[in-house]
Amino acid sequence: MIDQRLLPAREVIRTYRDYTGVAQAIRTMVIRGAPAIGVAAAMGVALGIRGVSGSRAQRRFELVARTLKATRPTAVNLAWAVARMRRVLDENPALDAAALFRRMRSEALAIYHEDLAANRALGKYGAELIESNPVTILTHCNAGALATAGYGTALGVVRAAREAGKQVSVIADETRPFLQGSRLTAWELRKDRIPVTVIADNMAGTVLRAGRVDCVIVGTDRTAANGDVANKIGTYPLAVMAARHNVPFYVAAPLSSIDLDCGRGDDIPIEERAGTELTEFAGQQIAARGVKTFNPAFDVTPAELVTAIITERGVARPPYGKSLAELNNRA
Amino acid sequence: MIDQRLLPAREVIRTYRDYTGVAQAIRTMVIRGAPAIGVAAAMGVALGIRGVSGSRAQRRFELVARTLKATRPTAVNLAWAVARMRRVLDENPALDAAALFRRMRSEALAIYHEDLAANRALGKYGAELIESNPVTILTHCNAGALATAGYGTALGVVRAAREAGKQVSVIADETRPFLQGSRLTAWELRKDRIPVTVIADNMAGTVLRAGRVDCVIVGTDRTAANGDVANKIGTYPLAVMAARHNVPFYVAAPLSSIDLDCGRGDDIPIEERAGTELTEFAGQQIAARGVKTFNPAFDVTPAELVTAIITERGVARPPYGKSLAELNNRA
Repeated sequence: MIDQRLLPAREVIRTYRDYTGVAQAIRTMVIRGAPAIGVAAAMGVALGIRGVSGSRAQRRFELVARTLKATRPTAVNLAWAVARMRRVLDENPALDAAALFRRMRSEALAIYHEDLAANRALGKYGAELIESNPVTILTHCNAGALATAGYGTALGVVRAAREAGKQVSVIADETRPFLQGSRLTAWELRKDRIPVTVIADNMAGTVLRAGRVDCVIVGTDRTAANGDVANKIGTYPLAVMAARHNVPFYVAAPLSSIDLDCGRGDDIPIEERAGTELTEFAGQQIAARGVKTFNPAFDVTPAELVTAIITERGVARPPYGKSLAELNNRA
Repeated sequence: MIDQRLLPAREVIRTYRDYTGVAQAIRTMVIRGAPAIGVAAAMGVALGIRGVSGSRAQRRFELVARTLKATRPTAVNLAWAVARMRRVLDENPALDAAALFRRMRSEALAIYHEDLAANRALGKYGAELIESNPVTILTHCNAGALATAGYGTALGVVRAAREAGKQVSVIADETRPFLQGSRLTAWELRKDRIPVTVIADNMAGTVLRAGRVDCVIVGTDRTAANGDVANKIGTYPLAVMAARHNVPFYVAAPLSSIDLDCGRGDDIPIEERAGTELTEFAGQQIAARGVKTFNPAFDVTPAELVTAIITERGVARPPYGKSLAELNNRA
């Protein structure tokens, strides 16, 4: 994994040989982004059951699954990937340890490749939604190659629009406190030579009001059956501002991030992270000492503010209860 | 002046003996906050005409006024204070240099003391608006003692509410990019032992939605005759979110920050500051190299989103065109 905490200053690749390392990497945000942590968790499960089989593999799996799922609660991709690995384990009770590991590794790699393919398909559907050319897309956080197996969800749409011949530029919210926008999204887009302008999160209202944005596209960590969208903190006010200024608000959501077992946004667990993310920067104290903090990592955007949800099987429109279920059932 | 760039890590007092130093201090945000830079500019004018009189003083004044007013365009207090110093100069053509300096210095000190008195009066009117007890007030940026001659406008209301016996706690937006909230507001309130919780700007929607905020109170750098409010970037989306969740949105505006010559918010010049405020922190590069930036220091909140404007002469309610003019004319 690229250590995303160190970007853009340094590109450091970290290698993990056991599931506890993978869990620690997810918890500390060496790797982040819902699809990316799904893939990482699948690989962590494969590492976790290496060397065991039969009932020992089952017991080991419970420990590994519990450890990985406890790292970050909001993104459903993590639980989704672990559940998929569990099915493979359950379906192969007779394999010896070496064969079981090969089968589990192969499933993890399948998740990886399927995510990449899903991003590309989602990107194409999303690009078809974009009418203007040139087009300016505002995004929040990083839903790019770094957040996925590659290519990206929201940034996948950006890339697909460019590949379709559009003149695309991006406005990237810096995305406090972890700065995924200015550190990661801007870094990715610069590599692809896609023009990018960084703003502070609180400046999005100004660029929307000024008519400088054609559409907003964000990713999601978990979208409920009714279309409520959990995504990086700040997405909800961004959606409110987009609606106020009649700018389409799109969510790029691979099916792995849509949780049909979760009825509505209020049922999605929202992770709170350490206050030091707000009070310190690069080891330096930036807030007054002794202050309290509140640091929710995600918020929930109600479905009523979402213009469309873009998946790898097509575009869902309101009412999402119906359209998301239909897409999910489509072959 | 306390060097506000270094708080809360270090309390360094800087002394300036000429107007160019004062201008530089305002431009580089050693001192910031609309009322505070008004007071500083008045003192800068007094320093600037020291040693001259008559037509030489008039010529010198033009240079000093131009230099000071060019430092920061949005806050009207700066132009207001300079205009007030000009009146004193114009009314005293016959004074010799020493007497003129004493008179100008006395006027600058009057502005200082009047601002302090205005904050205390404004604070009392604001505190009367607060019905609940305990009360949680959300604020943006720093409209406290540091931003004024002392006591504060928005934080003046907080202080007055506490002095009136209320159990007050504050949620402070950290306020990117300069972090006036986490660095300055939190520091002031900790000194006064008023409980304060720091959040990132993009978390305000979550606390408003959760019903954790009784009212929002902010300061203003310039309020137009129609009640449109220019204030620190991020105020506009905060007002939109407050309206969405039926939370009162109050603006603490001493009359020195109300510009009746400015018809509406679109006529207020909005300062853009260097992109390095977004791409660097404490000399460290935080954004991908080579990215473009957009860094407006203020935004405009339309009057329709403002529940009331609190001044030292009372509380203005919509329609503001009428109520602000009436307060201004009141003796």
